[in-house]
Amino acid sequence: MSTSRLEAFSDGVFAIAITLLVLEIRVPAHSANLSHALLHEWPSYFAYAVSFLTIGIMWVNHHQLFRLVHESDRKLLFVNLGLLMCIAFVPFPTAIVAEFVEKSGEARAAVLLYGVTLTFTALFWQLLWYWAIDRPHIVGPSADRAAISAISQSFWVGLPVYAAGTAVALASPLASVAIFGGIALFYVFERGA
Amino acid sequence: MSTSRLEAFSDGVFAIAITLLVLEIRVPAHSANLSHALLHEWPSYFAYAVSFLTIGIMWVNHHQLFRLVHESDRKLLFVNLGLLMCIAFVPFPTAIVAEFVEKSGEARAAVLLYGVTLTFTALFWQLLWYWAIDRPHIVGPSADRAAISAISQSFWVGLPVYAAGTAVALASPLASVAIFGGIALFYVFERGA
Amino acid sequence: MSTSRLEAFSDGVFAIAITLLVLEIRVPAHSANLSHALLHEWPSYFAYAVSFLTIGIMWVNHHQLFRLVHESDRKLLFVNLGLLMCIAFVPFPTAIVAEFVEKSGEARAAVLLYGVTLTFTALFWQLLWYWAIDRPHIVGPSADRAAISAISQSFWVGLPVYAAGTAVALASPLASVAIFGGIALFYVFERGA
Amino acid sequence: MSTSRLEAFSDGVFAIAITLLVLEIRVPAHSANLSHALLHEWPSYFAYAVSFLTIGIMWVNHHQLFRLVHESDRKLLFVNLGLLMCIAFVPFPTAIVAEFVEKSGEARAAVLLYGVTLTFTALFWQLLWYWAIDRPHIVGPSADRAAISAISQSFWVGLPVYAAGTAVALASPLASVAIFGGIALFYVFERGA
Repeated sequence: MSTSRLEAFSDGVFAIAITLLVLEIRVPAHSANLSHALLHEWPSYFAYAVSFLTIGIMWVNHHQLFRLVHESDRKLLFVNLGLLMCIAFVPFPTAIVAEFVEKSGEARAAVLLYGVTLTFTALFWQLLWYWAIDRPHIVGPSADRAAISAISQSFWVGLPVYAAGTAVALASPLASVAIFGGIALFYVFERGA
Repeated sequence: MSTSRLEAFSDGVFAIAITLLVLEIRVPAHSANLSHALLHEWPSYFAYAVSFLTIGIMWVNHHQLFRLVHESDRKLLFVNLGLLMCIAFVPFPTAIVAEFVEKSGEARAAVLLYGVTLTFTALFWQLLWYWAIDRPHIVGPSADRAAISAISQSFWVGLPVYAAGTAVALASPLASVAIFGGIALFYVFERGA
Repeated sequence: MSTSRLEAFSDGVFAIAITLLVLEIRVPAHSANLSHALLHEWPSYFAYAVSFLTIGIMWVNHHQLFRLVHESDRKLLFVNLGLLMCIAFVPFPTAIVAEFVEKSGEARAAVLLYGVTLTFTALFWQLLWYWAIDRPHIVGPSADRAAISAISQSFWVGLPVYAAGTAVALASPLASVAIFGGIALFYVFERGA
Repeated sequence: MSTSRLEAFSDGVFAIAITLLVLEIRVPAHSANLSHALLHEWPSYFAYAVSFLTIGIMWVNHHQLFRLVHESDRKLLFVNLGLLMCIAFVPFPTAIVAEFVEKSGEARAAVLLYGVTLTFTALFWQLLWYWAIDRPHIVGPSADRAAISAISQSFWVGLPVYAAGTAVALASPLASVAIFGGIALFYVFERGA
């Protein structure tokens, strides 16, 4: 079974989830001071940028993984579906963080939801990665094992970092959000280097 | 007529319908207890997961069917369009179930709508399947008839099970929703096995 | 310039516009009688089905046109963009018709907007068709002129019929909506035959 | 690394952003005079058309750029992601302009946001263009340098024109919106010529 439709379907879900993020930014109600109201929505813009970069990095990683994958089987389709279920969920915690991160009593629960979602996403990503690279009928006999090991090490960082960022939310939601933004920027420049 | 654009268009509709499901989860109003409000939305998360898996399984089946289909004709385009009309409708009954499943007076109608939608989807799926496999110009002369029969038997289960799950809603809406979740999990593990 | 990305982009817009239609069906407010409220939304379901079939038929036609088109140029990209601008607009008049078709004082304006949108879409469709088929560098030297003429005649019906259906709305909005539904069914069975 | 999935993913984001624009046009509340209410929404239709054409032109340009690009690397993926982050944001300032352009105290901030978004988009576009064309491993050794220079000159106009159009909003928001509409029409006819 070739991976072309799996890739096309996944690209579709990544592209739609990343583009739906903008729907979570609310048009302010009429007011005497629109520029103030627009600036006041900074958490929405920040959450948009962090989630956009995070989903974008996941797409780049997905792209990179499937360049190594030559065959697909049904199990891989369903592990991939689990990953997509997490990715497609991201617009919801993004909206929650944008709405509540400035409210002192509600910021913690909002950022926890966001962090748990990203941690689950990282978990499914690891599952997909180790699932695929361990199966010769999936990566093919001529797979570049050194390249795979290097990528595995780089990906391995994601899960504990997202889990730690989530735990930080218990003490300081804003610090936690800054960590998620930092992870995204780190991957952009590390992967982009 | 090749099936490549039919597959691309169908992949698009599947990917969009599955990703729009998240828009049905509502951002709670401001309140003193956000974590309580978020946990209170459990029917939305459950409905999201069941509908995501159900559409995902339909996509895997569609993928599998069109690996057997070598040609397309206009009739096939329109039978496929009918299936997509059902799939693209799923976010609406999903939102209805999420909103009303906990309200005792309204749960039955909500789950009935959900079950009827899935039953219609299974009906169109059967129609598409039997339409395609019976036409030599569609499946090609070298079609693997034994593989087709095995798949036919496995798919044949869907329609009566969805119809039965819908009928159960008359007695117990929650049992009916549990059945729909069970069907999705069954297919994930049966197909993924 | 090959047409593959033009087709992929168009498929994307068709698939998204057709799938966004479901967002226009509103979740009813809490009430004692959900089944009554759901049945009361029949104009939404009817408008969903008519618009879904109409966009679906346009996609089938687009598919058929671009099987004849071997090359693309910049002008074709922009004429196609005009068609897509009409297609992507359809969810708005669909929502307007669903909301207002039962209100006696508002139904006429609602159905007029719907009919004018479909008439403009048919107009752009004709423009795209005659643009493409008249240019040898677009259809290729070996184009099947007899097939093109037959399709031209079949498409030529669309514009006056949509314009007439729109004019009928001035006298009877419901008759006009029935005509649009009838056109969609006619094309499904005529094309599907 | 081939550019096929980068193009497919970008096509997806362009197609979704352009199709989501319609969601920003609001269904009017019930009123005695629906035709009046629909005509009163003219800024929404105008903003829809301007943003649709603007995103459409960017897609045509993207299409044209990647016909010259033979290889991709990680940096290109991320510069492209930055461009897509701007494109996917466009529905938000479009909704703001549609909502506030007629309110004298709020029009300026609304149009400034729109102009700043388009200026950033033009900036990322220039970055992507100069990034790609300067790298032999990306454009390939046989790149048509004369064609590239001609396109560079034509694209170079975009950034100062969008910046100037944004500055005009300080004096007259309506003149600024007219300029953005004029730029879109200019590119449609210039590129389409």
